[in-house]
Amino acid sequence: MSLQANPVAIVVHGGAGRIERKSLTPELERLYHETLERSLRAGHEILRSGGSALDAVEAAIVIMEDAPVFNAGKGSVFSAEGKNELDASIMDGSGLQAGAVGGVTTVKNPIRAARAVMENSKHVFFTNEGAEKFAVDNGLELVKPDYFRTDRRWKQFLNWRKQEEARAKPQAATTPEQPEDYFGTVGCVALDAKGNIAAGTSTGGMTGKRFGRIGDSPIIGAGTYADNRTAGISCTGHGEYFIRHAVAHDISARIAYKKESLAKAADDVVKSVLKKAGGNGGVIAIDAEGNVVMEFNTPAMSRGYIDREGKLKTAIFK
Amino acid sequence: MSLQANPVAIVVHGGAGRIERKSLTPELERLYHETLERSLRAGHEILRSGGSALDAVEAAIVIMEDAPVFNAGKGSVFSAEGKNELDASIMDGSGLQAGAVGGVTTVKNPIRAARAVMENSKHVFFTNEGAEKFAVDNGLELVKPDYFRTDRRWKQFLNWRKQEEARAKPQAATTPEQPEDYFGTVGCVALDAKGNIAAGTSTGGMTGKRFGRIGDSPIIGAGTYADNRTAGISCTGHGEYFIRHAVAHDISARIAYKKESLAKAADDVVKSVLKKAGGNGGVIAIDAEGNVVMEFNTPAMSRGYIDREGKLKTAIFK
Repeated sequence: MSLQANPVAIVVHGGAGRIERKSLTPELERLYHETLERSLRAGHEILRSGGSALDAVEAAIVIMEDAPVFNAGKGSVFSAEGKNELDASIMDGSGLQAGAVGGVTTVKNPIRAARAVMENSKHVFFTNEGAEKFAVDNGLELVKPDYFRTDRRWKQFLNWRKQEEARAKPQAATTPEQPEDYFGTVGCVALDAKGNIAAGTSTGGMTGKRFGRIGDSPIIGAGTYADNRTAGISCTGHGEYFIRHAVAHDISARIAYKKESLAKAADDVVKSVLKKAGGNGGVIAIDAEGNVVMEFNTPAMSRGYIDREGKLKTAIFK
Repeated sequence: MSLQANPVAIVVHGGAGRIERKSLTPELERLYHETLERSLRAGHEILRSGGSALDAVEAAIVIMEDAPVFNAGKGSVFSAEGKNELDASIMDGSGLQAGAVGGVTTVKNPIRAARAVMENSKHVFFTNEGAEKFAVDNGLELVKPDYFRTDRRWKQFLNWRKQEEARAKPQAATTPEQPEDYFGTVGCVALDAKGNIAAGTSTGGMTGKRFGRIGDSPIIGAGTYADNRTAGISCTGHGEYFIRHAVAHDISARIAYKKESLAKAADDVVKSVLKKAGGNGGVIAIDAEGNVVMEFNTPAMSRGYIDREGKLKTAIFK
């Protein structure tokens, strides 16, 4: 059986949110597209040469973590205390192996730490100092906490803090949330020539999140899930809603138990269940046949794919 | 409509494991039964007088956390570094609200902290220092870390350490795991007279867990899930398997999408899916009609219920 006989496909997201076209400079918009494409090509090259879905997911996410434009790795948003606390998870759909880290502050590429947890420990999930210690013990690249800082995110943080102060005044109850609140989490799903599906997600969380808050990104079943029999899924959005609705696992379960298509399952969960609950965000996913889905209920989700025909596409708005 | 017209029911577990009858002293066995019964009666009294499932779950779990006999709150097992790090979660099936804490070391009743996260924050999950800070800010009762220590668990830890040292020697590759490895996590599910279902889980984790390891107990969808339309579920066992299989949400999804009964869904997941994967443990659950399920694939699970007819039963072995 030649490799060409089996489809390979890859899909990435760079976060969903209420960002509007006019708020995006042409420079920033170009950067989004460029980085999404670079990330897709890096992952796809691995898949095309017979590499694993896991390797493709890791490679694609590392590029987005290293790019300051996304809210993951370098360029992460700031917590309420003005710190960067990063979360990531990865899952291998062939044996339901998984790894995750939460609240790390010195690991350059949290997705690599998640994979190390999966492959080098008996555990699935490490948080905070324990996760940092694990990363050190496993020889992962460390950085000083200020490596993650960018001026753009720091300005967002200062702006958030100003709004919080305004909100504390009674007359300001209607202060709108920030347009970019949940924008910028990154994720990737890939299907390799052996039929294995992997999924991963990495984030800096929400601007102004409280110290120690863990969102959906490192939660297996919420922000990330992969099962060769159904699909691989990576989520982005208001994490608390994604945890409470176990969004990634729910899409997998609808395929397994309701015999829904991936497209129908993703549409129902994102456009109906989450939308009704008030949960903003989106998902990317690939099923065992290589069907690619990118679904969101926000004005925008930066996203892209190289499908099983080799066609590349990136987009931000609807 | 009188309260009596609607069934109320409560079920608790005190952990599943490979404990054998002969390893349990009569004194310890009596303590298990006594504490399970006290916990059930406290929760049931709340349900019977029209209180909420959430209040019943919290009250029942607080009793088990305070009892040194269980691996939750006082009496928790020790991590690889000889510390007590506690996890808990709670979920309200009426609106899918949820709260969880991971890795706390000074909060007397982690289940109360989980509930405070659900009710007093925009977030679902706090870990480590952030969780402790949240508990302090919300006026929860704090204790010194050595409050949780018991001689029995400390001896288990020393025994574990000795076995680890033995395992490090090449000739000792077959050293058996400890019989009580995963035994003692506590959980509760309740159905109240308004038809609301709540579920909660609290644990000290696994003896010898690595610093910062988070198990399934505080993971919504893995160790705990509740949805009035399907069931409330609390899990106990080898947490990593419960995370990777999203056990609590999977049982809920099978009821929702495959239209399985709670009994069939729990049996399939615990006795078939988990057993095949090598995941030891069990679940307790109640559905919207008040059907109670207690399912495990280990030699023992300390457990008990007061069903909709008011019948009380506690048990440890099969």
